[in-house]
Amino acid sequence: MDAFMEEALKEAKKGIHAGHGGPFGAVIAKDGKIIGRGHNEVVKNNDPTCHGEMMAIHDACKNLGTFDLSGSVLYTTGYPCPMCLGAILWANIEKVYYGCNLEDTDKIGFRDSRFYEMSSDEKKKEAFLVELGRKECQDLYQEYLSLSDRKAY
Amino acid sequence: MDAFMEEALKEAKKGIHAGHGGPFGAVIAKDGKIIGRGHNEVVKNNDPTCHGEMMAIHDACKNLGTFDLSGSVLYTTGYPCPMCLGAILWANIEKVYYGCNLEDTDKIGFRDSRFYEMSSDEKKKEAFLVELGRKECQDLYQEYLSLSDRKAY
Repeated sequence: MDAFMEEALKEAKKGIHAGHGGPFGAVIAKDGKIIGRGHNEVVKNNDPTCHGEMMAIHDACKNLGTFDLSGSVLYTTGYPCPMCLGAILWANIEKVYYGCNLEDTDKIGFRDSRFYEMSSDEKKKEAFLVELGRKECQDLYQEYLSLSDRKAY
Repeated sequence: MDAFMEEALKEAKKGIHAGHGGPFGAVIAKDGKIIGRGHNEVVKNNDPTCHGEMMAIHDACKNLGTFDLSGSVLYTTGYPCPMCLGAILWANIEKVYYGCNLEDTDKIGFRDSRFYEMSSDEKKKEAFLVELGRKECQDLYQEYLSLSDRKAY
């Protein structure tokens, strides 16, 4: 099997045997080297955002001192959930290799596939997300645009 | 305006004037009290995942000592991106109030709407996400299921 996926598997196994969370490990590679790694730590950290892919992104950004992981590839033991896919896109990661698919992940009791349904169902989103105070927030956006020392990202 | 949205705006303003990142602040309320707050710190932390909603979730989970924010409501100055929406769902937050919509956010140069397109476009996802080592990862999932001291989340 691919050497980077092997490392993602190692991360996941380390995590489940330490009781950190689910069986999800990830590594990020750039120019043939691993620049970040992580595994699910939702239970350990009491934080629902601590998925393997997120932890690997935190690690790579810290190691490289940048929020831009352009030119890198991510390997993960399970198909990313919408949160992780979003983070992967914000990080400018160029490709994702995953082991188990959404059905596999569903079968062991994780809700990823339901979240993809929500993400693409306008009616469900409308019921869940409600507009409030738009005018004041638009003023905030304008205030931001008027700042001279903004750093683009 | 709503007092909680007012607090989300305060968070956002604090962030942009300190140069932490974009004009996005969030607070999480439960039983009429704020249990977590945060603003975008992508630039400050060199980490693309540090959106206002994510920082507020980290803060609330830390304050309450749990990854489960059931019964809480989130207020945010801009419509959540797919990453933040995913995190909100994982956290079991029950409702979201947002100020600016996706078009407003697009106009000031952020890519949120394009990420929603990716999230619901199967062809684009297929080109970006590639299966690799599924068998070994399925074995990992089974290894996880066989652990006697798993904590559900």
